[in-house]
Amino acid sequence: MIGTSTPARPAITAAFISALRAAVEGDHVHVDEERRSAYGHDETEDLVFPPDVVVRPRTTAEVAAVVRLCAEHRVPVTPIGARTGLSGGALSVHGGVGLALDRMDSITAIDERNLQVTVEPGVITQVLQEAVAAKGLYYAPDPSSRGSCTIGGNLAENSGGPRAVKYGVTRDFVLNLEVVLPSGDVIWTGANTLKNSTGYDLTRLLVGSEGTLGIITKAVLRLIPLPRENRLMLVPFTSAEKACEAVSAVFRAGITPSAMEFMERDAIDWTLRFVGDVTVAVPDEVQAHLLIEVDGNDGDVLMKECEAIMAVMEAHGCGEVLFAETTAEKDGLWRMRRRVGEAVKSNSVYKEEDTVVPRYELPRLLAGVKAIGARYGFRSVCYGHAGDGNLHVNIIKGDLDQRTWDEELPKAIREIFELTVSLGGTLSGEHGIGLVQRPYMDIAFNGVQLDLMRRIKQVFDPLGIMNPGKVLP
Amino acid sequence: MIGTSTPARPAITAAFISALRAAVEGDHVHVDEERRSAYGHDETEDLVFPPDVVVRPRTTAEVAAVVRLCAEHRVPVTPIGARTGLSGGALSVHGGVGLALDRMDSITAIDERNLQVTVEPGVITQVLQEAVAAKGLYYAPDPSSRGSCTIGGNLAENSGGPRAVKYGVTRDFVLNLEVVLPSGDVIWTGANTLKNSTGYDLTRLLVGSEGTLGIITKAVLRLIPLPRENRLMLVPFTSAEKACEAVSAVFRAGITPSAMEFMERDAIDWTLRFVGDVTVAVPDEVQAHLLIEVDGNDGDVLMKECEAIMAVMEAHGCGEVLFAETTAEKDGLWRMRRRVGEAVKSNSVYKEEDTVVPRYELPRLLAGVKAIGARYGFRSVCYGHAGDGNLHVNIIKGDLDQRTWDEELPKAIREIFELTVSLGGTLSGEHGIGLVQRPYMDIAFNGVQLDLMRRIKQVFDPLGIMNPGKVLP
Repeated sequence: MIGTSTPARPAITAAFISALRAAVEGDHVHVDEERRSAYGHDETEDLVFPPDVVVRPRTTAEVAAVVRLCAEHRVPVTPIGARTGLSGGALSVHGGVGLALDRMDSITAIDERNLQVTVEPGVITQVLQEAVAAKGLYYAPDPSSRGSCTIGGNLAENSGGPRAVKYGVTRDFVLNLEVVLPSGDVIWTGANTLKNSTGYDLTRLLVGSEGTLGIITKAVLRLIPLPRENRLMLVPFTSAEKACEAVSAVFRAGITPSAMEFMERDAIDWTLRFVGDVTVAVPDEVQAHLLIEVDGNDGDVLMKECEAIMAVMEAHGCGEVLFAETTAEKDGLWRMRRRVGEAVKSNSVYKEEDTVVPRYELPRLLAGVKAIGARYGFRSVCYGHAGDGNLHVNIIKGDLDQRTWDEELPKAIREIFELTVSLGGTLSGEHGIGLVQRPYMDIAFNGVQLDLMRRIKQVFDPLGIMNPGKVLP
Repeated sequence: MIGTSTPARPAITAAFISALRAAVEGDHVHVDEERRSAYGHDETEDLVFPPDVVVRPRTTAEVAAVVRLCAEHRVPVTPIGARTGLSGGALSVHGGVGLALDRMDSITAIDERNLQVTVEPGVITQVLQEAVAAKGLYYAPDPSSRGSCTIGGNLAENSGGPRAVKYGVTRDFVLNLEVVLPSGDVIWTGANTLKNSTGYDLTRLLVGSEGTLGIITKAVLRLIPLPRENRLMLVPFTSAEKACEAVSAVFRAGITPSAMEFMERDAIDWTLRFVGDVTVAVPDEVQAHLLIEVDGNDGDVLMKECEAIMAVMEAHGCGEVLFAETTAEKDGLWRMRRRVGEAVKSNSVYKEEDTVVPRYELPRLLAGVKAIGARYGFRSVCYGHAGDGNLHVNIIKGDLDQRTWDEELPKAIREIFELTVSLGGTLSGEHGIGLVQRPYMDIAFNGVQLDLMRRIKQVFDPLGIMNPGKVLP
């Protein structure tokens, strides 16, 4: 366990397992090693924390019954989505029940008249996007893992993705949530309305709470008309800081792109090698790229916006811009961008930090990260959602010795987060705190703030059974 | 007091007053009848609840000192903004200190590089909008009272306004808040970033909490590029329900207007008489109008959008559309729309309900309100933000006798809210619950939900001194 006192492992009795089996229809309560291990990891480093028992309910009533049993037996319960998380939020660090939502994967209703959709938590984000796109509608939040991550996890971590810069993050698309509380009670958090000033905003308190306050079993999400067209360009720079400087200038020129992504040279090189089937000529002197998309309903307007963006880029000394001419070219560039994380992971042991600062501070953050790296002797590959000031800092183990990696790196990470906060930013833009960022929460929050959060946690979960060991130090 | 047991009026001692005077520099602690009465009402019906003492601090430190004194002496403290509220949130229903934020009215910093602005709570919304517009930036939330309401009140009630339909409500523009807690501790709720997945979302828990969890003393707000152009049209219908039906059809046609307002016949007639200087010819058969605005950066695109909207309107049987040709004409139409509330108020004693439903349910809500009115024998004038499904139902006293008004009307209002909730809606879209909607909270929330909210309140305010008697029944 990282930075937490480990409570006694809960006693998982045969009677408890029988009660779970009685609560869930079919054969969906598993104690075999293989299932426990499969549900014991996500995409966070190489961490593995298998639950004692995996339960895969199909209905809200089954989730509630399982949670009631856990409360009665004081057994920890950790909600598990698609296991694509990057902060360890779904790891059963205290054992107990791993409550997998993957069987709850229905798109319950697409309401075309109200531009809303009701979904279960196990729906894959891209499946939802494609289902509503078929009706001319758009669900914009699209984490890079959208092909495998699920809405439940997106809600738990308040996920973002490239389009957040124009359309907002998961939080901004949520109208109402059905939640199983740690008591086993089932509530809806709000109403199915675009505006709501009725009592405290339980909906947005649950979004981003990483499964520590309750288990989301249904979500009513807002949809918007699907933009009919887009343009995509890849802009090279000979200096990563220059690229970052160009980012905020675009917005100041009055343009809001639908994506404004940043990738360092290494990120592109490694990813091109990793994906194999995308060809981009990258001259030797190029140090970073911006991937910029605009979308809308009018091709002429998009072309004007592209021209305005080009002017900003040239003023910041960019190299030759590559426009994606065809859908295949667009797909190739997006595939490259979306797979940077996997490419880095395949290259070396690494640690990823999800730093976020006000947009204009990005060049200072990047320079600071490199300076800290130089001092501690580590190399980093940075990429991310530059338009949001959200920089994924991937620290590469490479040939660093294990002692330095284990003992010095946490100090370096602490310095990176201190820099982030000093620039008006914070620890996580879209990955959440989960397990691995928890030791750094004191950098973002003082005792008064943390105490408020701890007491809110107690309001929802007085027994402390719901995803223990996460978020709050 | 409405629906609450009245605790003993707090003892306001001379020593307490002296301590307040010592805590606030200058002569800003008032116990005279005139000041108390001036700070004892807002725009909610004709309710008056004067505080025992009015305190007008200038700094966060002074607010904190005043709140600490109130905690020590167990004196209720009610934050007071511009007193334009429509749910009684700023009324000192239990006496004590009325803490007026009107002297904290600085725009601290407009950060053009990060598209952010830091403001004190007493800044008038329109003043902020004009200050950032001068730099080509846009703060979109604009309640109809924007010329007099303040950001602090907008944050407390999560205010909306006509542009929310495209740009979102106050909540959607808030990045970070400085808050004086009921303990007197001062915290920031988050970070100055566009994305944030770091701990529980205290920022959005405070927004819309109506001054019951703490006092907002500073806000960092998001800005966007100012749209360069807009088009405005007034569309008459011979049936109010037909007008409401046309609303959702516009969005389904793929267009998101920057305003989509609905006004019943009476609302227009009364307002034209009230404002005097706006001329709109309204044929006898017209029963309702939609006021529709589109905005953007390209005149040709806006013209295309107007044409598409026209086609939808004609398909729903609209009358002859009036396009505002000049800035003066646009201003006139907006002045008319913004002053409907005052016009209704000047016409009769009334009660306003801030109902909100999913957009497509609006015709059903309107028909239901009229049917309930017919049954109880009251007349209503309805208008509001149709694009958001947010209908302001103004129930007119007219010549109803006082007994019916006092005893029967609450039953009718209860039926209206029950209808609203049955349509997927809720009690308040943008005015908040405050004092006057509190008796109806059981319609929107059950005991489990209300208990969560009560316990969250206790986390922040264990002594129950912060704006007591509001929101929670």
